[in-house]
Amino acid sequence: MNLDGRLESALDSALSDEAIGTAPPRLVEAVRYAVFPGGARVRPRLCLSVAAACGESDPSLSDAAAAAVELLHCASLVHDDMPAFDGAAVRRGKASVHARFGEALALLAGDALIVCAFQTLAKGAGQSPGRLANVLSVVGRGVGMPAGIVAGQAWECEQNVPLKDYQRAKTGALFAAATMGGAAAAGDDPEPWRMLGESIGEAYQVADDLLDANGDPEIIGKPVGRDVALDRPSAVRELGQNESALALRRLVEQAIESVPPCQGQTSLRKLIELESEHFMRLALSCRAAA
Amino acid sequence: MNLDGRLESALDSALSDEAIGTAPPRLVEAVRYAVFPGGARVRPRLCLSVAAACGESDPSLSDAAAAAVELLHCASLVHDDMPAFDGAAVRRGKASVHARFGEALALLAGDALIVCAFQTLAKGAGQSPGRLANVLSVVGRGVGMPAGIVAGQAWECEQNVPLKDYQRAKTGALFAAATMGGAAAAGDDPEPWRMLGESIGEAYQVADDLLDANGDPEIIGKPVGRDVALDRPSAVRELGQNESALALRRLVEQAIESVPPCQGQTSLRKLIELESEHFMRLALSCRAAA
Repeated sequence: MNLDGRLESALDSALSDEAIGTAPPRLVEAVRYAVFPGGARVRPRLCLSVAAACGESDPSLSDAAAAAVELLHCASLVHDDMPAFDGAAVRRGKASVHARFGEALALLAGDALIVCAFQTLAKGAGQSPGRLANVLSVVGRGVGMPAGIVAGQAWECEQNVPLKDYQRAKTGALFAAATMGGAAAAGDDPEPWRMLGESIGEAYQVADDLLDANGDPEIIGKPVGRDVALDRPSAVRELGQNESALALRRLVEQAIESVPPCQGQTSLRKLIELESEHFMRLALSCRAAA
Repeated sequence: MNLDGRLESALDSALSDEAIGTAPPRLVEAVRYAVFPGGARVRPRLCLSVAAACGESDPSLSDAAAAAVELLHCASLVHDDMPAFDGAAVRRGKASVHARFGEALALLAGDALIVCAFQTLAKGAGQSPGRLANVLSVVGRGVGMPAGIVAGQAWECEQNVPLKDYQRAKTGALFAAATMGGAAAAGDDPEPWRMLGESIGEAYQVADDLLDANGDPEIIGKPVGRDVALDRPSAVRELGQNESALALRRLVEQAIESVPPCQGQTSLRKLIELESEHFMRLALSCRAAA
């Protein structure tokens, strides 16, 4: 099965009737609505690609790590879209979870997805119980305190925001969880894989800032101009568009160079190049059109 | 160290400067505010008592399981108090987290505590990596889908509520996680410990319903009369006060009888009897005064 097929199958299984079917029906509907159909699934595909490059000795655990990263990403989108934060009514081209199901169920759906992510790791570790603590730790670090995506969001509630900490936590942390989680699932030391995740995450954030400044809401499936409207820090606001575009190219190069020695190093570099082209083209073409 | 000392020390460590000190300062303040000073810490003390009764071969993992259960309980209180649910301004005799820090930080503090609970398990499993998946599974089941406390809360968003499922998920599930988590942390099969947790949880829910109907808000540290105000199911509304009081006594007896054979069976039974007396006296005395 290809990476996309494996990932969707792992997500299907985590949210299957067998796993959650007896939960309150609207909660089941809300969590599935938050996860299917997905966005680009960039983080979990990265996780599986790293596991493969490391010689993947336990595909069940890599699948679980990838699914957990995506479930946590979806949970963060559900909570971030709520009125206490962005108040976004649209996500991935359809009504956001709170707009469709109400705030109470959106809050619970996010909570349920966080818990489900960690349960998925436990289920997937049957063949390699000795790796579970390591995978759980790096995935948890990407989402929790002190510097995961929850912390990134919480920097928006502070007066004085260290911009680098904010950006790294808000986006880089979960990408680092994806690369490090993939390596840990394969039984390798996750630490050398941190830089790759952080670089791709930072590139992705810059591309997102460019799209927010100039993108077409029809194409990207969410409203634009939110950074200015919500007075959020952004690369475009800080550096301007030309410098942001240069920074984006530089970060992608840095990511490719940072792939640690491993049996699949060459093909992983090629893959990252190909994947990056898609979001670079989108972000840079809309800049040209602006 | 006694159980209370061990538990507070485990919670201190999970939320120490070393663990979370570089997170955004108001987030750090909010999560500590949610956890300290605690309530009765009934669930984690139960977890540690079961681990001890099972011959506790790895105190670090029992401490982690107990701390995780309490962190998850605190997270659920933070989210349940928010305006989308109970809209409670007071908790444990002080302003609730959202009343003090705002909705955005309350949402994030709850999320951060959930993640922290699972990270705490991973950290605590260093000596017994083979037990982590089991402990994580039973703790996760108590809080997530299909029948943990998140599901219990989600039943309040449904038209047709199976009362037994609702009560079991809303309160029983996390008590079952406490007893089963304690057994799993000690390396024992957790399943025989489910009934004990569910019985104590049900007793606790009936006691809580009695307090909500008749308690003194000064003594119990939160407003009363909420079940009627929010049209929530409750034992008192369903059975009346006399029957509820009888049910409470019966459930405590059932809990004591259900303690499975283990090396500390006699002392655990004695302990549960003593602990239950406290909340029975509180719930039944306020009934007498009503």
